[in-house]
Amino acid sequence: MPFKPFPLTKNQLETIAQTYETPFYIYDEKAIRSNAEKLKAAFSILPGFKEYYAVKGCPNPYILKILRDEDFGGDCSSLPEIFLCEKAGILGENVMFTSNETPAKEYVYANARGAILNLDDITHIDFVNEALKGFPELICFRYNPGPLKKGNAIIGNPEEAKYGLTRDQLFEAYAKAKKLGAKRFGLHTMVASNELGNDYFIETARILYELAVELKHKLDITLEFINMGGGIGIPYKPGEKSVDYEYIAKGIKKIYDQIIVPNFDTEIKFFMECSRVITGPYGWLVTRAIHEKHIYRDYIGVDATMADLMRPGMYGAYHHVSVAGKENVTDENGNFIDGSDSHVYDVVGSLCENCDKFAVQRKLPKIEVGDFVIVHDAGAHGRAMGFNYNGKLRCGELLLRSTNKIVQIRRKETYDDYFATLDFKGLATFSGAEPKEK
Amino acid sequence: MPFKPFPLTKNQLETIAQTYETPFYIYDEKAIRSNAEKLKAAFSILPGFKEYYAVKGCPNPYILKILRDEDFGGDCSSLPEIFLCEKAGILGENVMFTSNETPAKEYVYANARGAILNLDDITHIDFVNEALKGFPELICFRYNPGPLKKGNAIIGNPEEAKYGLTRDQLFEAYAKAKKLGAKRFGLHTMVASNELGNDYFIETARILYELAVELKHKLDITLEFINMGGGIGIPYKPGEKSVDYEYIAKGIKKIYDQIIVPNFDTEIKFFMECSRVITGPYGWLVTRAIHEKHIYRDYIGVDATMADLMRPGMYGAYHHVSVAGKENVTDENGNFIDGSDSHVYDVVGSLCENCDKFAVQRKLPKIEVGDFVIVHDAGAHGRAMGFNYNGKLRCGELLLRSTNKIVQIRRKETYDDYFATLDFKGLATFSGAEPKEK
Repeated sequence: MPFKPFPLTKNQLETIAQTYETPFYIYDEKAIRSNAEKLKAAFSILPGFKEYYAVKGCPNPYILKILRDEDFGGDCSSLPEIFLCEKAGILGENVMFTSNETPAKEYVYANARGAILNLDDITHIDFVNEALKGFPELICFRYNPGPLKKGNAIIGNPEEAKYGLTRDQLFEAYAKAKKLGAKRFGLHTMVASNELGNDYFIETARILYELAVELKHKLDITLEFINMGGGIGIPYKPGEKSVDYEYIAKGIKKIYDQIIVPNFDTEIKFFMECSRVITGPYGWLVTRAIHEKHIYRDYIGVDATMADLMRPGMYGAYHHVSVAGKENVTDENGNFIDGSDSHVYDVVGSLCENCDKFAVQRKLPKIEVGDFVIVHDAGAHGRAMGFNYNGKLRCGELLLRSTNKIVQIRRKETYDDYFATLDFKGLATFSGAEPKEK
Repeated sequence: MPFKPFPLTKNQLETIAQTYETPFYIYDEKAIRSNAEKLKAAFSILPGFKEYYAVKGCPNPYILKILRDEDFGGDCSSLPEIFLCEKAGILGENVMFTSNETPAKEYVYANARGAILNLDDITHIDFVNEALKGFPELICFRYNPGPLKKGNAIIGNPEEAKYGLTRDQLFEAYAKAKKLGAKRFGLHTMVASNELGNDYFIETARILYELAVELKHKLDITLEFINMGGGIGIPYKPGEKSVDYEYIAKGIKKIYDQIIVPNFDTEIKFFMECSRVITGPYGWLVTRAIHEKHIYRDYIGVDATMADLMRPGMYGAYHHVSVAGKENVTDENGNFIDGSDSHVYDVVGSLCENCDKFAVQRKLPKIEVGDFVIVHDAGAHGRAMGFNYNGKLRCGELLLRSTNKIVQIRRKETYDDYFATLDFKGLATFSGAEPKEK
């Protein structure tokens, strides 16, 4: 049993690569659905539970369609993200529009589509009221607990984060919204990113439930939902442990029973906006070793680059790397099995940036040119964050259907895509042939 | 005199914004040319001086065309970059192909175009020989001095960098290349990025000149050129000083006279591959304040995001920020003038990432919604590094011609661009209207 699963054998990859050249992303529908079912089963003890998948994690409508089939909504923060949801059939209040520094036209569009507007600042009340020529009946506010809540490495400390309203502003905002005609209310916060501590989420829910009671007593407002945001992490590294859905759900339910049940006649729904934990472990970047280099260190050059997957280069983030057909050199904890032929490599892309490294000084089985090198946990914040630096084209996406069929759900970029925003007509151009696709 | 110049007044920006909505990049042709002239004047004391502009810094063919008019070549590391050079009329040996982990087809294309191949590894000799079915007559190798040379913050230490050949490999490589039929040789290194120490570059040249002598004595190879790479920095922050072209050129010339002149009958040309110092200070990201927010800190939300300019979010890099019409609140050192109305802001974009901040806790004049907020030193590694995370569209580019005419040299992205790689046909789609441009 390898440390991290990958659903295809080396032979299957060879067959796929005959049609779809590496690099490509591949997602596993069956695994995504099975994880969604587990999440729903655990959280179904909370009234009106709904997960709004944060579209930015994997903005592919075919993935969103799978999640919609699992009754997930979509958390959007831009117009194109709302549009992707619509293409996948995620409509109306199944769209949570959690944006910040939002242009007026985006509020107008989101509102026209019936999305839930989740406002990031108190000044957005007037801004929205003016943009929409009237205030929506349903409104949510994002709370920033500031120094009350300790942050984590990626998102920083809440009091240094640009998001949300302070506690005082929150009460002022609900009162003002009520006066402007709002009748249905939600409350949101999000203060973590890639957090693996189960209790962190339970404590976040407690903050929101306590505020719900205070809002009732001070303003006679009964929240329709609280939205805990996202931030549930995944164990990228050996030795890290997945969060426990059941533990978190039960912990939150206990607080709900203590705080909400005695204070309200009606139920308060529980929403979240995760993406990493929903698709992260079920997507992989598949790339091929094309060069081997030995200087002060040993390098494997692959045909993907940081343009395809930014996290290692951008954050120094760890992604597990495996080699197709050589999975069994490690045990289920990622440790090399005695006698296996292990080497220490930097696995690098071709970008003219030294941080373009998928793995740094990593113990791996011996890699030959031509081997498939698989980067794990790339199903969220992977293809989504790609760029075109150095003239690099971003790769495509495949989906392994539950039927075991492979379908392409995003083609790779072409030179024409890269040049799309340029008009060469203003140049006295060289008349040579244009570069051809492979 | 403001701390950092911007070539347009607030009124001029208002006029431009009527045609080209913010955010946009704008480049100053006159300033780019004037800087290019200064560089050439200083380095003309070195035989055969040529600057190969590193295309990745600003991959716009209209900018490249200006540089070509100034007799610059292009340093490319991907096929689309070569193509952009060709569109700008930078052809043949005016293209330096400094790539790494290169796919075979890119060597084939670069060679067919007559570009100089600069090989990153000893194994690329056989790789190129096979890909081209023969070895090129002109070849360059990239040297990695390893622990001999101290690195800097961005590029790291050379012995941890993926680039280049070791010293031993270098001699082996030239011998092998010669045997394969190469007749003209170059030597390259690049071990800095955004370095402001003048002597750093002089010392780099010394390493290359000393190697040139050794290559002559050991292998009877006379280099045609040395290529010092790029890495000359710019003073992003108040208090930092520009490098001194004349000091560097004179320092290198002195070493040339000491080391090269007594050992060679012929001249060895001097090349470099800068981009930051060439266009960096002469390009700006122009954005508009659209929101003002006061929570634990004071925030100005602008209509550009990290998708338009990554450096602050990605590296925590400092970029000077000014406000159109309010330039005179600071002196030429960037210090606020007594009595000016200064505030401390975080200037942020709308990305759902807390690192989407152009300025953090920055002393700025009081900003009103609607003000133009100008991000300086964005003329290299700016638009080039943009991404589409969160469904954000990358902005366009304008050029202020030497004639004072404004021309658009790249249109901003549209929703169609964003969706270009998706085929919605496989989805049972919602039949609503598609989002419209503004």
